[in-house]
Amino acid sequence: MPRYKATIEYDGSGFVGWQRQATGPSIQQSIEEAILKFCAEKVVVHGAGRTDAGVHALGQAAHFDLEKEAETERVRAAINFHLKPAPIVLVSVEEAAPGFNARTSARHRAYLYRIVNRRAPPALDRGRAWHVPHELDVAAMHEAAQVLVGKHDFTTFRASLCQAKSPVKTLDRLDVVRDGEMVNVHAEARSFLHHQVRNMVGTLNLVGQGKWSAEDVRRALEARDRAAGGPTCPPDGLYLMRVEY
Amino acid sequence: MPRYKATIEYDGSGFVGWQRQATGPSIQQSIEEAILKFCAEKVVVHGAGRTDAGVHALGQAAHFDLEKEAETERVRAAINFHLKPAPIVLVSVEEAAPGFNARTSARHRAYLYRIVNRRAPPALDRGRAWHVPHELDVAAMHEAAQVLVGKHDFTTFRASLCQAKSPVKTLDRLDVVRDGEMVNVHAEARSFLHHQVRNMVGTLNLVGQGKWSAEDVRRALEARDRAAGGPTCPPDGLYLMRVEY
Repeated sequence: MPRYKATIEYDGSGFVGWQRQATGPSIQQSIEEAILKFCAEKVVVHGAGRTDAGVHALGQAAHFDLEKEAETERVRAAINFHLKPAPIVLVSVEEAAPGFNARTSARHRAYLYRIVNRRAPPALDRGRAWHVPHELDVAAMHEAAQVLVGKHDFTTFRASLCQAKSPVKTLDRLDVVRDGEMVNVHAEARSFLHHQVRNMVGTLNLVGQGKWSAEDVRRALEARDRAAGGPTCPPDGLYLMRVEY
Repeated sequence: MPRYKATIEYDGSGFVGWQRQATGPSIQQSIEEAILKFCAEKVVVHGAGRTDAGVHALGQAAHFDLEKEAETERVRAAINFHLKPAPIVLVSVEEAAPGFNARTSARHRAYLYRIVNRRAPPALDRGRAWHVPHELDVAAMHEAAQVLVGKHDFTTFRASLCQAKSPVKTLDRLDVVRDGEMVNVHAEARSFLHHQVRNMVGTLNLVGQGKWSAEDVRRALEARDRAAGGPTCPPDGLYLMRVEY
């Protein structure tokens, strides 16, 4: 029974998130139903990251096992055919080693958070970026972000519902870069806590608006208390870019 | 009576194009109706380019006259408020000289045509790019594109319904650039014929697939016959990026 690894792109708007839930359609369920239509097999598709409602992906990774033996290109094309018209696409499918696990084998995850930083709201990027009309001091945001890079107890940036065993994570990269009217935040780590990127960006936004200093961010981190951090920013701007193994 | 110049961003999907038509909602009509709601004035909004159904804009320009005297920031914000929930946004509004005409005063127009060049169709860029699964030879496309740069009779790349007085235009730039899985075509000129960019890109696609050479493109141009050119590519990938005065 071959195990497949898929790389998946999706527009998370209109979904309850990656994971199956009773409250509405999920990315996971959509792919599982497409596989059922393709080969009449009821499988579980295991994702590398459980993206929240409204969060997008250019490079989510997942694994699943099929009784059916078929060329990977055929598996990819057939699942994509049955996924229509959902805005979910398997970009590639490859055979994986039997022990491969999309979640636990992952060594590195990269997220991008996109901010439209101008007076007028976005038209083309509606639902695809966070609109911040106040001009952001990106240099100050980037400097404050470096306080968070490294191995820390990230309790301050962790959702109360987070199921991770430990709040200690190693953040490898948190870069804040301006590209015209866009402000892009690049976050990379082996793994993240629930809402960690959105809580960090919500806090850096306070720095960008001049309300907080890098020192305030350090104090918030050291408080190990969610109430000490900035607000959670909206899911619209968040993209799971890639998962490395 | 002040004349205003607006810079406009929109997602052209679901619209019949810039221009008012009996067959469905247009960008022009949406803005005119928002102005009517804002200040009860029935005006005509004159655009710099009459983008087709499904074509997008990051920097369309337009002018209109209002009896109402108001700060430009207020005009912009109020029209945007009344445009909701349409995916149309006035990015900026400024006062223009009385003789300013968004269409005839324009000295330079820049378009971008976006191609997703990979096996799998796009999920996030659905309706926002043209999907070409066959791998494109971008160097060959760029070389062939240079045949079209300069002052030429562009009858081969002109829609039969085109209303321009002359088929002679000066194309200032036609660059084909790969950016990972994206192939971007940058087209710039004082003005373009109807469907000119889409007909040029449809022709360059034949070059990218190895079916045509740069010499074939030259012969097609010199034939001055629409039937000698490649097919019109879809509107989804086309963006009016900016208009200069």
